[in-house]
Amino acid sequence: MNGADSLESLKTLLAKLPGVGRRSAARMAVHAASRRDGYLRQLITVLEQVEREMVACSQCGAMTTVDRTPCRLCIDPRRDDRMVCVVEDPEDIEIMERAGVYRGRYFALGGKLAPTRGDQAVLARVQQLTARIRAGGVDEVLLALNSDVESDATAHYIAEQLGGLAVRVSRLARGIPAGSGLAYADPVTLEAAVRHRTAY
Amino acid sequence: MNGADSLESLKTLLAKLPGVGRRSAARMAVHAASRRDGYLRQLITVLEQVEREMVACSQCGAMTTVDRTPCRLCIDPRRDDRMVCVVEDPEDIEIMERAGVYRGRYFALGGKLAPTRGDQAVLARVQQLTARIRAGGVDEVLLALNSDVESDATAHYIAEQLGGLAVRVSRLARGIPAGSGLAYADPVTLEAAVRHRTAY
Repeated sequence: MNGADSLESLKTLLAKLPGVGRRSAARMAVHAASRRDGYLRQLITVLEQVEREMVACSQCGAMTTVDRTPCRLCIDPRRDDRMVCVVEDPEDIEIMERAGVYRGRYFALGGKLAPTRGDQAVLARVQQLTARIRAGGVDEVLLALNSDVESDATAHYIAEQLGGLAVRVSRLARGIPAGSGLAYADPVTLEAAVRHRTAY
Repeated sequence: MNGADSLESLKTLLAKLPGVGRRSAARMAVHAASRRDGYLRQLITVLEQVEREMVACSQCGAMTTVDRTPCRLCIDPRRDDRMVCVVEDPEDIEIMERAGVYRGRYFALGGKLAPTRGDQAVLARVQQLTARIRAGGVDEVLLALNSDVESDATAHYIAEQLGGLAVRVSRLARGIPAGSGLAYADPVTLEAAVRHRTAY
């Protein structure tokens, strides 16, 4: 409201976070700035701690503390080494873990391949994945990428790279989300739901 | 995922922002921590600037820079001094401004009255509001508070305080939101929409 001040910069930065639109960012920024209980100071302190203490796990890419890499998920002996779940971003690992439906290892790409950007970091991660599979001991790679054109292209590229190796490549099923109905499903989803229908 | 580290503290802090649930906070925190483009450092720098530069406007309570209080909205000569819009939080002022449907002055309470907490800061703000109205020059106070029990109680308390003064007290209309339908309206809203129906 008061032009190009630091509050505007804060809104811009917050709007870059996933799931945060311009309006929520504005609301969050003004709220954070106007609290009189030391919230802003706490937030700065914690962000500095995160900057100092957290790193990407050397294996899966999940966020972990500097003194704990490979991370807990990578060294947990109860998890299945023979299965690797590939996700786009580290935060996707938390989503899978919260659901508690997967007991294998993870591998975060740190993004997806964008033909126009040609993301070198993601390409390097795919090479690391290929090397890991080539080293043996993994039976299945589950591609748990998102569902858009670039994600599909990334999945396709990974499947191609793993093509010659002795590993099964799978991907998450598409279908009607639980608790939702036909009315909310787009044709592509519906087509997949029919094609891959399961026995009742 | 890695226990009680700084990333967990960041999630907890982000979850305190308005409209941010525990899950979005987790996603935002991991995303911020895992970016490799200096985002975290930028965010810290901007938050420090905000902490240093932004204050609540001495009159309306909106966020403004330290060198600009009263804020632009309070000193803008094109705005109508005879009308004061009372909101709960400074961020509500931005919501009103974005809609561009109001040209008077503002007054943010910085919260609402909660019987169990007995918020002294909000009570003090109501006293400041009463003093401002008593000083004269204001014809109408528009209560643009939220719609829940505590907000209603706060509106009621303010209306009571202003009761003896020569000022009209109004509040935002209740009704069916534009673009929405009857199916999504609760009985209270619907009752208000019928009672305050307008000529076609």
